[in-house]
Amino acid sequence: MSVLVDSKYLKNFTQAIFERMGCPVDQAKVAAECLNQADLRGVDSHGVARLGGYIRLWEKKRLNAQPNIRVVHETPSTGVIDGDLGLGLVTAPEAMKLAIKKAKQAGTGWVAVKNSNHYGIAAFHAMMALEEDMIGISMTNASPLVSPTFSKSRFLGTNPIAVAIPALNEPPFIIDMATTTVANGKLEVLQREGKDAPLGWAQDKDGLPTTDSFALKNGGSMLPLGGDRLHGGHKGYCLGAMVDIFSAILSGANYGPWVPPFVAFLDPPNDPVGDGIGHFLGAMRIDAFRPAGEFKSHMDNWIKTFRNAETIEADKKVLIPGDPERELTIQRLEEGVPLQEAVVEDLHRLAKQFEYNFNPEQHA
Amino acid sequence: MSVLVDSKYLKNFTQAIFERMGCPVDQAKVAAECLNQADLRGVDSHGVARLGGYIRLWEKKRLNAQPNIRVVHETPSTGVIDGDLGLGLVTAPEAMKLAIKKAKQAGTGWVAVKNSNHYGIAAFHAMMALEEDMIGISMTNASPLVSPTFSKSRFLGTNPIAVAIPALNEPPFIIDMATTTVANGKLEVLQREGKDAPLGWAQDKDGLPTTDSFALKNGGSMLPLGGDRLHGGHKGYCLGAMVDIFSAILSGANYGPWVPPFVAFLDPPNDPVGDGIGHFLGAMRIDAFRPAGEFKSHMDNWIKTFRNAETIEADKKVLIPGDPERELTIQRLEEGVPLQEAVVEDLHRLAKQFEYNFNPEQHA
Repeated sequence: MSVLVDSKYLKNFTQAIFERMGCPVDQAKVAAECLNQADLRGVDSHGVARLGGYIRLWEKKRLNAQPNIRVVHETPSTGVIDGDLGLGLVTAPEAMKLAIKKAKQAGTGWVAVKNSNHYGIAAFHAMMALEEDMIGISMTNASPLVSPTFSKSRFLGTNPIAVAIPALNEPPFIIDMATTTVANGKLEVLQREGKDAPLGWAQDKDGLPTTDSFALKNGGSMLPLGGDRLHGGHKGYCLGAMVDIFSAILSGANYGPWVPPFVAFLDPPNDPVGDGIGHFLGAMRIDAFRPAGEFKSHMDNWIKTFRNAETIEADKKVLIPGDPERELTIQRLEEGVPLQEAVVEDLHRLAKQFEYNFNPEQHA
Repeated sequence: MSVLVDSKYLKNFTQAIFERMGCPVDQAKVAAECLNQADLRGVDSHGVARLGGYIRLWEKKRLNAQPNIRVVHETPSTGVIDGDLGLGLVTAPEAMKLAIKKAKQAGTGWVAVKNSNHYGIAAFHAMMALEEDMIGISMTNASPLVSPTFSKSRFLGTNPIAVAIPALNEPPFIIDMATTTVANGKLEVLQREGKDAPLGWAQDKDGLPTTDSFALKNGGSMLPLGGDRLHGGHKGYCLGAMVDIFSAILSGANYGPWVPPFVAFLDPPNDPVGDGIGHFLGAMRIDAFRPAGEFKSHMDNWIKTFRNAETIEADKKVLIPGDPERELTIQRLEEGVPLQEAVVEDLHRLAKQFEYNFNPEQHA
């Protein structure tokens, strides 16, 4: 069962909770916007449902509500930011702002972030580049749940990559993908429904193929994009590894099995190899390559061409990256965001803890 | 049946043929080095076996042996190169040199190339950054053989991505992957052996799953990394699309179905949307982020940690990207490069055409 709640109401609630946790107003606002975009775009696992997770990290003193976010190193086209254990929801947009500023002057800007926390959906940060006529790139490492090919060790996160590319009259092209076969949220949906997972999504604790949607909870691990070796799983492992290295070894954050878990009930390793988790953000000015108008008109042609590719089944049209999320955003802005009962209960607990008058039922 | 031929002999032969085609000596040399590295690294489809393909493009006047390679646009961290229809084997290293030069000054360098041809293995160009203590990135679009998810149109190439990252005492971390489940060369191996392909590699002309290793020749298409939608094939489609856009729309080359086919017996579309095919090369100076020694010692730790991940089967160790190619290089430098009989015959034809005294049997 789920209830529909007005997205703006949820955003205001989220901002208020972050403020009461101690965040400065502007930081609470951008953090709330990031979670809200996840809810609108259909990434339910990364929206308001995750708010309690951040609070619990803060209670454990693993998250700093008033970070001193500092640029610790820079060149004309690069920078490194120390997030001071703040919300990734806040440090990543700061890093993207710096990348955009660098790109304005040097053509491109690339910023690695250390000492951060979970940064929400990757696309939110990449999309900041669009209004500047830039290509935005965003990636982050994450709690280790994924095994390298031929291994049963959980050594990588779902390590997403987002790429946002502007078009002219067509909507922008927006990739936002975990480098695993599926995001963890997809397994959680199957768990709630008591359903099995397709083969290729996860392996059991012995590294054998499994359809158990609870595989992770039973000591198993997620599989890199591609699944097993025969189907290219080693390429997903490569991509996840690249994200880990760009995000954490360039910046000085924790990598691989040392990445602190998002869930507060699991302690981080006591022998860290860096600070917090890491992100990597990039911005490339279109007109550092060719006039933006030319580029964007070819993007329109690319998009229209691919949208009109010959379909296999009449009812399944060919999609452009970003299409499903954009359609869902329009729908959810109108109809509201569907929240699972367990999520609503968790939000009520948070509201009580922070003395906020939370009435989702009156904002459907 | 295959014969083993000394790799240096093959490299000298390749350089001589390129010279006799009209390439300047230094360009013939780098082109031969690129094909040779493919043979050593085990990418047999991109080595000397492909030499005849370049010659046939040149005969059709689709390849310029004496190109005027020009930088047509630049900013402190970016550049665009017009390859003047030269060998991609030559224009891509030129572009990488420019990217490295930019990175020395601005921290990173990013160069898009138009009006080029097939550039060999992606890793060759990315690896140029290693000796400069930089991360190298290389991608290219290619002959359209791959269908977007839910489509049976061949709209994308196998569009590879290579990333080369230096370590300290460990060998470098080197990704070189097609953004499809497998590279086309893997299908060709099965064809020669008369074997079926696993499900998830290709689809037939109606877009249905197939195990036909000749699917491409029968009007079918290759599948993006991940295979079908349920197993994340839309993510492989996203990655292939990104490579196409970075390589061709940023540079002004042909993209999607307009990419000129590598095989000379297929004519390019008569309504081009750009010039030749496109590449995208990048170089990031490590110490634009943190001291190179620090970074590389953490890379060693990353590599050792992953190499020692717990295995599923005792006889299958966990690999680091680049391991298999490095091991094969050592072996082939010693034992020689295995060439299929059909390849040897093709090389004899080329030798005759260019009046070169070719004796592979005496250089085993």
